[in-house]
Amino acid sequence: MFKMADSGPKYFISTKRIETLVDGIFAISMTLMVLNIHLPDSSGVWTNEMVWGIIWGQLSNLFIYTLSFVILAGFWITHHRGFDHITRADQAFLWINVIWLLFVALVPFSTSLMGDFGNTIPAALFFNINLFFIGLFSFLIRKQVIEHELADKSLKPADVKHVYAATLIFPALSGIAIALSFISPGYSFLPYLFIPVALNIVHKLQK
Amino acid sequence: MFKMADSGPKYFISTKRIETLVDGIFAISMTLMVLNIHLPDSSGVWTNEMVWGIIWGQLSNLFIYTLSFVILAGFWITHHRGFDHITRADQAFLWINVIWLLFVALVPFSTSLMGDFGNTIPAALFFNINLFFIGLFSFLIRKQVIEHELADKSLKPADVKHVYAATLIFPALSGIAIALSFISPGYSFLPYLFIPVALNIVHKLQK
Amino acid sequence: MFKMADSGPKYFISTKRIETLVDGIFAISMTLMVLNIHLPDSSGVWTNEMVWGIIWGQLSNLFIYTLSFVILAGFWITHHRGFDHITRADQAFLWINVIWLLFVALVPFSTSLMGDFGNTIPAALFFNINLFFIGLFSFLIRKQVIEHELADKSLKPADVKHVYAATLIFPALSGIAIALSFISPGYSFLPYLFIPVALNIVHKLQK
Amino acid sequence: MFKMADSGPKYFISTKRIETLVDGIFAISMTLMVLNIHLPDSSGVWTNEMVWGIIWGQLSNLFIYTLSFVILAGFWITHHRGFDHITRADQAFLWINVIWLLFVALVPFSTSLMGDFGNTIPAALFFNINLFFIGLFSFLIRKQVIEHELADKSLKPADVKHVYAATLIFPALSGIAIALSFISPGYSFLPYLFIPVALNIVHKLQK
Repeated sequence: MFKMADSGPKYFISTKRIETLVDGIFAISMTLMVLNIHLPDSSGVWTNEMVWGIIWGQLSNLFIYTLSFVILAGFWITHHRGFDHITRADQAFLWINVIWLLFVALVPFSTSLMGDFGNTIPAALFFNINLFFIGLFSFLIRKQVIEHELADKSLKPADVKHVYAATLIFPALSGIAIALSFISPGYSFLPYLFIPVALNIVHKLQK
Repeated sequence: MFKMADSGPKYFISTKRIETLVDGIFAISMTLMVLNIHLPDSSGVWTNEMVWGIIWGQLSNLFIYTLSFVILAGFWITHHRGFDHITRADQAFLWINVIWLLFVALVPFSTSLMGDFGNTIPAALFFNINLFFIGLFSFLIRKQVIEHELADKSLKPADVKHVYAATLIFPALSGIAIALSFISPGYSFLPYLFIPVALNIVHKLQK
Repeated sequence: MFKMADSGPKYFISTKRIETLVDGIFAISMTLMVLNIHLPDSSGVWTNEMVWGIIWGQLSNLFIYTLSFVILAGFWITHHRGFDHITRADQAFLWINVIWLLFVALVPFSTSLMGDFGNTIPAALFFNINLFFIGLFSFLIRKQVIEHELADKSLKPADVKHVYAATLIFPALSGIAIALSFISPGYSFLPYLFIPVALNIVHKLQK
Repeated sequence: MFKMADSGPKYFISTKRIETLVDGIFAISMTLMVLNIHLPDSSGVWTNEMVWGIIWGQLSNLFIYTLSFVILAGFWITHHRGFDHITRADQAFLWINVIWLLFVALVPFSTSLMGDFGNTIPAALFFNINLFFIGLFSFLIRKQVIEHELADKSLKPADVKHVYAATLIFPALSGIAIALSFISPGYSFLPYLFIPVALNIVHKLQK
């Protein structure tokens, strides 16, 4: 294991395989989250009102599930768009991806924590810090690609600045969400709703 | 994330990657559903009669599992047949697919709700509304492909009408199932058994 | 959905996509089974003896997990070897595969039932009947390929007979396991250990 | 099933399919582990302190999750690097891979056992023995490839020695972890932290 170390810093491997692991872990994380929506033991007699109560009690779980699903989908799409031009991977790049995936695979747990205990500070902190690290490592993946020239074509300096700005929006919004967790944990997810707006601003500033 | 917005409405990405996510989420959803069939704690002494009782008590879960599995398989097959001719994806198409997958990944939960509390109105409503949205977004995916010309060959107007009719059968039957949920929730799944018949009628009307 | 019906019995689709779904559902089923090995709530003080007790109490689950894993791996390998020469799929072939996968995805549940309640008749029956249907549909898949000429090369009559014999070994051994379930449910898995021997006999008879 | 036996020891199949199963089982095992981090029933009133208590109580689970995730990622990377040159697979090679995957799929269970009962001897033993077997079968896979010439190019005798040494580091460290389990089960994971160091030493000795 870890035999890659033997080949020195100049060794490059195909990125095809990393994409396979990324695809698998994203698909599973996105689907596993639904298991966090709990149902009570069904034995006994259940009236319509009682079952409405169950669904109603899981509304926050359903909302957080939807939010996490869409955020993960967004990261997955961006990752693949970024990978289109990456033709080789050095060892550091590989392990940055693995740690990134570690935080992605942790999302079903933080989502469950946030869905169940979302109005407490620790649950909101855990959830937002988890998302912050996903965003941070997404940025580090891009940085590694640009600085170590792993892509088949180089970006112009202006484009690099733009890619960095766009990639740092998510960690920045997570930072605000982390701060909000101390004041109003139950609404700390609000910054994520500004992602489309923030991207539009970055896009317009570029012109 | 969501950087696609920067590229304007004319930007197209490969559909290959969407198919990978679709494959993963369908395979996982179809397999996760089996986790909804519960077994009690096995400690203590169990007689044959008691274990027959467990299996018997899970019969409705097994039936709903089979129904959901076959319906998801049907959507998966149709999706791939539709994707054969799609050669590009715009941003709207991408996000319609993501929301569609959100409802697909929710099926293990609704199936569990329907299996456990299927004779109550809210459980049947939740299950049938979930399926309705899967059908509706399947239709929207087709509509987007046809109207935005994402496929490599155009359909004749008569074929478009036929594809729309065939794709709208499922949401229509779900609509009937939703109405049935208020009258007889435990039998609200019955409309889905008419899918093959309905498809045959559409097929014959076309000639 | 099910739009394939419109295209008549002569319509063939690519088998590539079926393989993707097969791969996903096998990998997930094989990995999900491990979730059936239960651990008690870890709160409180636990001595070495108590934890040995937990592991010891899960030995039958571990054994059945291993057996199911190896049997599923065997079916997966055989399926792919069979698919190498299949170049088209008609509608019946597609749905035989879907029902086969339905029984494959059910294996984590039957394995759990067998692991927890394996010394009762209903648990052993359910497990062995599930495996019987996987074997039967494996045979039906082969039969469909041969009779409807879905492969790129035809088999000689002698080879067809041999393929049928080899494919029917598993359902035959499952049949014995079903009979054994009534006499000694806890040992009803024994026939499966004879698979390699039975294959050797078929192989020698062919010469 | 197991029909491969009929084709005799000289029969080779494509390694492409094995890689698919390997990818699936690794992605699922790495993601399933997160399900072992438990949350209590969320009904009732929860204070910040109580939720900090939950997270704190799951710290050992989070640590073991991270360790197992990184170890599995390492095996996955090494496996794919090894597979790049493998062009055929005989029957023994296939089944060594299946048994290797059986131990990989068992990791979510051992990780859960180690996370929950890690300060008891049996839990630490089970975890470390599981990892030992993964390492051992990784070595056997390499050995099979080299001795049965399944790769498209042969290694020089010096390289073979080096590959064996690098591949045996993990089982050796697992062996130390197994011994440590009897003395200090809660710290028996320590040897795994020396993997990068050990690989460096092997690398330098080679020169």
